[in-house]
Amino acid sequence: MQVRVYYKDTDMGGIVYHANYLNFCEMARSEMFFKEGKSPMINGCHFAIKKIDADFMSPAYLGDLLQITTKVTKLKHTSLELYHEIYREETLIFKQSVTLVFLCKDGKPHRIDEETKAFFRQHLF
Amino acid sequence: MQVRVYYKDTDMGGIVYHANYLNFCEMARSEMFFKEGKSPMINGCHFAIKKIDADFMSPAYLGDLLQITTKVTKLKHTSLELYHEIYREETLIFKQSVTLVFLCKDGKPHRIDEETKAFFRQHLF
Amino acid sequence: MQVRVYYKDTDMGGIVYHANYLNFCEMARSEMFFKEGKSPMINGCHFAIKKIDADFMSPAYLGDLLQITTKVTKLKHTSLELYHEIYREETLIFKQSVTLVFLCKDGKPHRIDEETKAFFRQHLF
Amino acid sequence: MQVRVYYKDTDMGGIVYHANYLNFCEMARSEMFFKEGKSPMINGCHFAIKKIDADFMSPAYLGDLLQITTKVTKLKHTSLELYHEIYREETLIFKQSVTLVFLCKDGKPHRIDEETKAFFRQHLF
Repeated sequence: MQVRVYYKDTDMGGIVYHANYLNFCEMARSEMFFKEGKSPMINGCHFAIKKIDADFMSPAYLGDLLQITTKVTKLKHTSLELYHEIYREETLIFKQSVTLVFLCKDGKPHRIDEETKAFFRQHLF
Repeated sequence: MQVRVYYKDTDMGGIVYHANYLNFCEMARSEMFFKEGKSPMINGCHFAIKKIDADFMSPAYLGDLLQITTKVTKLKHTSLELYHEIYREETLIFKQSVTLVFLCKDGKPHRIDEETKAFFRQHLF
Repeated sequence: MQVRVYYKDTDMGGIVYHANYLNFCEMARSEMFFKEGKSPMINGCHFAIKKIDADFMSPAYLGDLLQITTKVTKLKHTSLELYHEIYREETLIFKQSVTLVFLCKDGKPHRIDEETKAFFRQHLF
Repeated sequence: MQVRVYYKDTDMGGIVYHANYLNFCEMARSEMFFKEGKSPMINGCHFAIKKIDADFMSPAYLGDLLQITTKVTKLKHTSLELYHEIYREETLIFKQSVTLVFLCKDGKPHRIDEETKAFFRQHLF
């Protein structure tokens, strides 16, 4: 997935504000669903974030076109792990591991349904 | 209501990103409810924005302490109008008129309940 | 310009948070520059917002693909007026007039250079 | 530092959007400076984020008053490590370790000046 950096993404340091890299990764995760005509909201359940490990390797600037990759690194009954990388041209500028848990309206972890598991299995690393 | 300007509010121009003044006004509106132990979500209904007229008079900078005022300028059956001003010390730096409509879960305008009307009437200009 | 609605754009009302429509319009304005290989930062000067009139006509939801149009409605020595519309398919859901002034590092309005004027004249309504 | 949760912080899941916890921690870090009459911008240099490890333990909701704590866990020549916790009343809902590097206008790490080191040493765990 490709994302352009706009003013809204920058801060007074002249570079992308750190928390916005997490937004970019959310966009890439959600777009995995949208581009196949699906939604990341599945029968009132969704994937909530439990853990993030992120490395900020190089800044991004206004107008940059960033490439965001998403890989599934672990797939369990009620949770999964993803690994995102963000590139500006050939340069890796950010990487992030994220653990997500499948929560339903009761606010508790539920088993990920088979269709959704099959969907993620395609992207399993 | 008082709001501090943090990095997250600024952009690479070194000043507060324009859309964030709208956030500050939402904070002031919501805080009217919170400080009286109420919520701006009322029996599943809430106030959705229909119209905004905003004037940006002077920039705000990292670390600024801004004062936000809210006045009720019109109170109707299903909608109301508010007027916000943002000050840095004595200087008016932003003003905004906003029309809100009371929407419930069906996505349609509903009559504002009497308790909520009475609440807004206190702040009627 | 086309923008997808992601989680980050929504609020607990289940729809796009109102201030984010202003972000979408900034993206469309900036993209006018980027797609011609230009930047909205011009020799250390940029366009700062002075005034916004916005109408919120219909909500947008997670996954929506929105189309944003930009027209130049007035072009003066140190400022210009733009008019944005946001559509979901054929439906107009948001419209906004915005007045911008050309500010340089001294924080004062400057004459818009001829190249930039010519650039905007192409989009003059 | 105390932060209220507003609409702008929530997403359509009805809870605070994950990246906004990072904003709350930035606010707490910056406020350490502001409350002593200092700025986190020091002679054109500032602290840029290199690494984040975050655990999301419990969601936060509209109107919640969150307490954010900041401890200095490591203080080196050009970088430091902080540890943030976010509480809702007595409940720990989020924790984060963050590594920051002191960058100046050349975009390179510089030695943290003695005054700033002394400032952080007060908060050393």
